[in-house]
Amino acid sequence: MEKLSAAIAAVRQPDERAMAETQRRLDRLTKPPGSLGRLEELAVRLAGIAGTSELAIVRKAVVVMAGDHGVCEEGVSAFPQEVTGQMVLNFLNGGAAINVLAGQAGAEVVCVDVGVKAELDDDRLVSRKVRAGTGNIAREAAMTREEAVRALEVGIELAEELQARGVGMLATGEMGIGNTTPSAAVLAALGGLEPEEVVGRGTGVGDEGLARKRAAVAAALRTNRPDAGDPIDVLAKVGGLEIAGLAGLIVGAAARRLPVVIDGFIATVAALAACRLVPAAQAYLIPSHLSEERGHRLALRLLGLEPMLHLGMRLGEGTGAALCFPLADAAVQVLNKMATFDSAGVSER
Amino acid sequence: MEKLSAAIAAVRQPDERAMAETQRRLDRLTKPPGSLGRLEELAVRLAGIAGTSELAIVRKAVVVMAGDHGVCEEGVSAFPQEVTGQMVLNFLNGGAAINVLAGQAGAEVVCVDVGVKAELDDDRLVSRKVRAGTGNIAREAAMTREEAVRALEVGIELAEELQARGVGMLATGEMGIGNTTPSAAVLAALGGLEPEEVVGRGTGVGDEGLARKRAAVAAALRTNRPDAGDPIDVLAKVGGLEIAGLAGLIVGAAARRLPVVIDGFIATVAALAACRLVPAAQAYLIPSHLSEERGHRLALRLLGLEPMLHLGMRLGEGTGAALCFPLADAAVQVLNKMATFDSAGVSER
Repeated sequence: MEKLSAAIAAVRQPDERAMAETQRRLDRLTKPPGSLGRLEELAVRLAGIAGTSELAIVRKAVVVMAGDHGVCEEGVSAFPQEVTGQMVLNFLNGGAAINVLAGQAGAEVVCVDVGVKAELDDDRLVSRKVRAGTGNIAREAAMTREEAVRALEVGIELAEELQARGVGMLATGEMGIGNTTPSAAVLAALGGLEPEEVVGRGTGVGDEGLARKRAAVAAALRTNRPDAGDPIDVLAKVGGLEIAGLAGLIVGAAARRLPVVIDGFIATVAALAACRLVPAAQAYLIPSHLSEERGHRLALRLLGLEPMLHLGMRLGEGTGAALCFPLADAAVQVLNKMATFDSAGVSER
Repeated sequence: MEKLSAAIAAVRQPDERAMAETQRRLDRLTKPPGSLGRLEELAVRLAGIAGTSELAIVRKAVVVMAGDHGVCEEGVSAFPQEVTGQMVLNFLNGGAAINVLAGQAGAEVVCVDVGVKAELDDDRLVSRKVRAGTGNIAREAAMTREEAVRALEVGIELAEELQARGVGMLATGEMGIGNTTPSAAVLAALGGLEPEEVVGRGTGVGDEGLARKRAAVAAALRTNRPDAGDPIDVLAKVGGLEIAGLAGLIVGAAARRLPVVIDGFIATVAALAACRLVPAAQAYLIPSHLSEERGHRLALRLLGLEPMLHLGMRLGEGTGAALCFPLADAAVQVLNKMATFDSAGVSER
């Protein structure tokens, strides 16, 4: 708990002076003021995080947190539970979508076992298993409060370790068969929303599976009665180990002044939990895509984030976030490389 | 006219077999079927264009067509007309937004003078001036029919020349102070729309400028009476030299089986004109961003295109298109590099 408290206490507001200076610099460049839209906002946000308008292209990593979910026994996923561990091996071998998309963006993939049911023994894996999968939230708590804190601290440690290795920008990834169900439960609890509003088809369940997911979320809320004012309680009772891990990664990133690109539904729910722990963390979030998953738009709205990519994706793993790394680089290079009206001899309006 | 007729006659439908084979390959990869959304559609479209599911990363170029507009004398732009030529020099010197964004995507910028008012003498410029700016469409035709055909053929030539130099993917860029006004007029004529629906603030005119733009578009349609069934007539009477040049580039790209990424409002209107000349060209278009400019959404809808990036940009130059090059590369690499369920030993649903 000490590591978590220290990280929460370390989160500062972004640097307003650096942001204002960046906007002034952007307004001198050879383009109508504001005409690069969200790309300009992104440069300003990155400057606020870095505390300077002197931005540089940084090393990037996608942190893929993996965990299993007891609620799978309710029949909430189109895939069998063993796929979580199989996909972790796929990540380690470089064959998954996130490997390809991170590779295209020049980012590394860091895969963390924070709660996979299978025993995974591989040097390339960051092994920080808190427990081997959660309890079935439809009938019991996902984990104890202590386990939730430990999963949060795994995320904080990862942010610290990656920064120490020279990484300057993170993205959130996850793998966990069944994890849209606890994510929906966490969103319902934190947002005061009904299961119908937050439950979607995940990797592709049919109408019956969708009904089972809604029932499981309703049962999880009824059985566990999570305290909406206590995000750790919500994560412990109806969340997941990788969801708590990502929430910790986001708190840790904010504490270390690292921007963190938020992927789809699960990651956005984790970000919401992080920002309930420490609201100032919001300034460190970079939105990415709008997922097809039903509750994503609601979760983004609760965080005040607007997605940049509309690709109808619903894969997770951090894939949508990785596709946004080039936009962050583009924002930085616009600021650094464009000519000014003065230097280019272009008339102003 | 011969070059234009030959290009129109050369446009073929995309290769359905290559598209179906690509979708089958995508469905064997370690992800839920369809879960990469528009990225999968993009891979399928690129395969249809290439005529094979064996796709590769290709060399890319942004073609920035520049031209001036007589309608500027109606007070329709926030910037003075001389900025067109000044910005062309900025492109040649690498200081504009499109230089930075194309550079980030590993693409070259090819700047073409198809109708700039100023005399520009620079070896780095592709000089194909058809005439030194258009007539004021509020009072006369933009150009003669012969000039419109010549501008279209400049675009076709560029597609051919770039393909001969090894370029495998194009993006449309443009520069022309005042060019949202003729673009709105072309869109109104081709789409049967009212000036109020298609006129926006361009680079940032105030309410009075907006009223002047609407009046200019209404006057252009009233005075010139363009024939909606004859896209060359529409381009000649109420269009622009760079708009016709881009329409030609798109026809030429389709004729040569080159994918062409369509930027914002002006480029999308040019694409609409191209697809009215030869509807099969639609299959060669890659949508990019949704511009802030009012008529863009309507023009995209008429073409059946869905934008991928929502960045609130309104700069033109090809900037939104250049930001989509990494998405095209990502789509190709997903197809080429991801593991299959079989090869990775991952259980299917």
